[in-house]
Amino acid sequence: MERALQNDNNIKTFVQIQIEAMSLRKWGYRLLPGLKWLHGYTGQDAVADLIAGVTVGLTVLPQGLAYATLAGLEPQYGLYSAFVGGIIYAMLGSCRQVTIGPTALLALMTSRHTGFGLGSGPAYAILLCLISGVVELGMAVLKLGALVDLISLPVTVGFTSATAVIIGTSQLKGLLGLRGGSGSDFINTMRSVLGNLHKVRTGDFTLGLTSIIVLLLLRKLKDVKLDGRIRNLRTQQLVSGSIWVIATGRNALVVLGTSVLAYSTCEQMKSCPFILTGKVKSGLPNFSLPKFETTILDRNGTEIRQNFEQMLSELGPSMLILPIIAVLGNVAISKAFGGAGLSPTRELVALSMSNICGAFCSSMPVTGSFSRSAVNHASGVRTPLGGCYTSVLVLLALGLLAPYFQYIPKAALSAVIISAVIFMIEFEVIKPLWRCSRRELLPGAITFVMSLAVGVEIGLLLGVSTDVAFLVYRAARPVLSVSKLQTSNGINYILIRPKHSSLYFPAVEWVRSGISKALTIHGTAPVVLDCANVHEFDFTAARGMGSLQKELAKANAPLFLMSADKTIGVILKESTNIDFPTIDCPDDLEFLLEQTADYVLHLQISAPLVESRLVHGDGGEPTELSKLNGKSS
Amino acid sequence: MERALQNDNNIKTFVQIQIEAMSLRKWGYRLLPGLKWLHGYTGQDAVADLIAGVTVGLTVLPQGLAYATLAGLEPQYGLYSAFVGGIIYAMLGSCRQVTIGPTALLALMTSRHTGFGLGSGPAYAILLCLISGVVELGMAVLKLGALVDLISLPVTVGFTSATAVIIGTSQLKGLLGLRGGSGSDFINTMRSVLGNLHKVRTGDFTLGLTSIIVLLLLRKLKDVKLDGRIRNLRTQQLVSGSIWVIATGRNALVVLGTSVLAYSTCEQMKSCPFILTGKVKSGLPNFSLPKFETTILDRNGTEIRQNFEQMLSELGPSMLILPIIAVLGNVAISKAFGGAGLSPTRELVALSMSNICGAFCSSMPVTGSFSRSAVNHASGVRTPLGGCYTSVLVLLALGLLAPYFQYIPKAALSAVIISAVIFMIEFEVIKPLWRCSRRELLPGAITFVMSLAVGVEIGLLLGVSTDVAFLVYRAARPVLSVSKLQTSNGINYILIRPKHSSLYFPAVEWVRSGISKALTIHGTAPVVLDCANVHEFDFTAARGMGSLQKELAKANAPLFLMSADKTIGVILKESTNIDFPTIDCPDDLEFLLEQTADYVLHLQISAPLVESRLVHGDGGEPTELSKLNGKSS
Repeated sequence: MERALQNDNNIKTFVQIQIEAMSLRKWGYRLLPGLKWLHGYTGQDAVADLIAGVTVGLTVLPQGLAYATLAGLEPQYGLYSAFVGGIIYAMLGSCRQVTIGPTALLALMTSRHTGFGLGSGPAYAILLCLISGVVELGMAVLKLGALVDLISLPVTVGFTSATAVIIGTSQLKGLLGLRGGSGSDFINTMRSVLGNLHKVRTGDFTLGLTSIIVLLLLRKLKDVKLDGRIRNLRTQQLVSGSIWVIATGRNALVVLGTSVLAYSTCEQMKSCPFILTGKVKSGLPNFSLPKFETTILDRNGTEIRQNFEQMLSELGPSMLILPIIAVLGNVAISKAFGGAGLSPTRELVALSMSNICGAFCSSMPVTGSFSRSAVNHASGVRTPLGGCYTSVLVLLALGLLAPYFQYIPKAALSAVIISAVIFMIEFEVIKPLWRCSRRELLPGAITFVMSLAVGVEIGLLLGVSTDVAFLVYRAARPVLSVSKLQTSNGINYILIRPKHSSLYFPAVEWVRSGISKALTIHGTAPVVLDCANVHEFDFTAARGMGSLQKELAKANAPLFLMSADKTIGVILKESTNIDFPTIDCPDDLEFLLEQTADYVLHLQISAPLVESRLVHGDGGEPTELSKLNGKSS
Repeated sequence: MERALQNDNNIKTFVQIQIEAMSLRKWGYRLLPGLKWLHGYTGQDAVADLIAGVTVGLTVLPQGLAYATLAGLEPQYGLYSAFVGGIIYAMLGSCRQVTIGPTALLALMTSRHTGFGLGSGPAYAILLCLISGVVELGMAVLKLGALVDLISLPVTVGFTSATAVIIGTSQLKGLLGLRGGSGSDFINTMRSVLGNLHKVRTGDFTLGLTSIIVLLLLRKLKDVKLDGRIRNLRTQQLVSGSIWVIATGRNALVVLGTSVLAYSTCEQMKSCPFILTGKVKSGLPNFSLPKFETTILDRNGTEIRQNFEQMLSELGPSMLILPIIAVLGNVAISKAFGGAGLSPTRELVALSMSNICGAFCSSMPVTGSFSRSAVNHASGVRTPLGGCYTSVLVLLALGLLAPYFQYIPKAALSAVIISAVIFMIEFEVIKPLWRCSRRELLPGAITFVMSLAVGVEIGLLLGVSTDVAFLVYRAARPVLSVSKLQTSNGINYILIRPKHSSLYFPAVEWVRSGISKALTIHGTAPVVLDCANVHEFDFTAARGMGSLQKELAKANAPLFLMSADKTIGVILKESTNIDFPTIDCPDDLEFLLEQTADYVLHLQISAPLVESRLVHGDGGEPTELSKLNGKSS
């Protein structure tokens, strides 16, 4: 009995501990959403994440070096920027493919503030990183992450495809063995590549092209079906498992293989046939507060001390534009890869903390990188923890591995990136769009073309603007169904039914001209505006209705509202001081229409007053006219 | 008999001539809409227009001189800009109050390009005038005049009131006898006035204040009722006629009276107690082609020849921003004064031609002036022909009257403007807005405050943006009515009814989360989305619906569409490749719901394929994922 009780108690305690553990876990999840990935994290997951993390790491290393140079900083700053995001995003983010780090666009924007000499470059870049993070946190607090909803699928596709083309062309130089950095500008990159075609290096080009072919073939490998060819189940599992590992780890394999080739070739020959990544400086960054003051050289070569305020004034609008572009880019990526289930606010917090924490590790501004996210996805990442492996690799590279990375041929890395992004160009969406909703091709096309011609941020903004303009157009030009009907007593009337659920300021003139046209076509008759579908109404629309009612009354065509919401009546009464004749159903309509003669007479008694004022050219003040604005023409 | 025939023929010919005359007139009206004002133009109209035209002329003369100086040009260019618009607008325009000419804002914008010395200022200003006209014509051709519909009543009121305050404060200097020009910037003007209060000149201030009091009293005069006090009908007509003339011509009267006073005082005393307008240079402008090349002085004082291309590059974005602001301002004026019956395109053509023709008469860029339009209105203008009288007065002033205008005290002119614009500040609209539609106070308040703080063009744009943001918000966050219902056979289902007429990309996530919440509250049950009110749909929404359907099927809560348009079905089919179970009425619903068990089973057979790919972390390319994007989370 006692044992049973104790047992019972034990069970209770056990349950309690379980519950406590669960609530602790819940709290932990809330604070660090990334912890949930650890729950049920299998060895297979770890292997997949490791492969993906290392592949991304092998991509981010040369990219980091290149982007830091593009930003006007020493190469190691690119690597400093590449490891914080991975760890922070693994803890806070929710989309497994997103990899946060330096990108070409942000590097380009940072470069505007790093050319003042005397080591002020890193100070400006790191401060900009901190400020971007703070601004992004502000956007998260204000729930501005919901702005993501404004990016439609055609715009996402246009943006993705354009980014793919830009990244692809930016890798052409590496593939062809042309020297010189390549920015994020499509047109200049193409011009530079085409102008230097005679300088193409055979070694690099051969290696790059071979790598691409090998990568594409290995990618096809996963489609190979083994069903029935191997009878032994164990062997079949082993073979298909190996195929999966090879197909998934193809990027790492190609990089490793080409590096070994480059090492053996270049050690034997005196002149190396391939352009290699080159030496990476060893050592971890300073973990310290960003500098809030710095010294720059002015044009005459004199040193000038810049305090915090002067630094802020130098950064100027970049403090707002850079984080907005970072968020837009990141959001488009997580939308493209993560589907619809993501919390935009959470993504924003993850991005913001990556920048804020990054600023304490000498990072330049970071955001999600489309190319690396694509590589990450293609390498079969399973959780955001993959980013941790990338971070570890980058830290190892900084501390220990640096000497070994120098043998990676640039052409191989370009091949990896090109064969990843080539599939991001989406033609498939054009066909269904053309079939069912052609006007939606426009925002997509604008995003694509303008992203290539002017820049991805402008392209994205123009695409979204096109979509928004269409929304406004719909509200401004509602479909009106017009019909001439007759009551059972033979009184003709014109029924106007707006098909839109709101009647707001931009639509008033449209409805007004629609009614005029209807009267011209069908002849003078009472007009009934069916508001059954109209749930929303505003002051401008109410004033317009008031003016319309007076005009129509003058033309012997009284205006009635049918099935109008109470709120519409209130707004009409308050804004025009007219008691609109409203009806609830066609029966009332008939009753009121029979009294039309009286009604028109009643209106005409009060109408001439307004009329005479307008014709008379009174000496009234403009207020009165603009008050009349809504009441009479 | 023969006579009768001839008579008949005569009548026929007469009728024919009449018809021909009518069709000729119609053609004339179409080409020059202003001609219609001449039809039935009475002597009374002419007197009213003359009084208004002269009053506006007396306002535009000092304003023109001041604005030309503000633009960095010699004073007479302000008068050159003041006469073309009046004539062109009388022929092409449709709003009697609008007076086109130089304005403070455009002068300020022009001034950016006139500081290069060697007479290049007028060349740049005139070229900018021509280009503005051409851009405005382009807007008219592209029917961009309909953009006017985007300016809601609260924004118009906010803009009008802010302009009134800015104009009023800009006249304070003249009223107080403070020297120095006043720009269009509210804050700087106020700071300058308050900082110079000790310099206020008694003479000017007394004259100005008296003028304002007299003007306001004369304005009240028209409200005086004579009914019954004078028995003789003829005398009563005469007295009320005189009252009308005095009340309407009060501006001209006050200017004339104060000028005579100033003349007699200043001729007697040695130091004049009033600041006068000062001498106006005589002579008409050159009627010639704008110059397409000019010479400027660079910083080192060397002369540099600028060709057409270099001039265009110097003007840069002003070539687009200036006409847009001109149009926005003009449109707001014609909306405030002209009511709803105006054709925006016609107003645009009138403005465009005023600028194009102006450029051939050495004019700087012109647009409708709010202050002068207010004076015009307050002076009782009856037709746009009033502008012709203004033009004649300006030409006379340039040619002959110049010496006589120098005695007009500036304080009197300031008084005229202040007592005109003081009534443009509209508080009356706040009360009904507060009562019936408080959220509309926001765009109005933003327009007003930002117009004062930053500038009228920014204020207007921000106000319109607030309104547009609200329209987009409405489309993105439709009201969803959720109810749990039961079929007659006792099957529970959840009915979701969006109250908006469209389901576009920004709303998909919202509907999705609304359905999730409904399922959490009401428990798992089939979901019926009632699309009876939804007439518009897009690709992104369709993909979102497809993804939602799959999610819900997994959660054993199948999704049905009720009363959906055919077009919605087509878009869904094309974009998701799913045959959505749609029903036309609740009866069908019951039938289908009874088959739910089968249906869910059917869905689960096809679902795991997608599911397994996502969990497996396949080596697929991102295209596939972003294609899945709309299909599964």
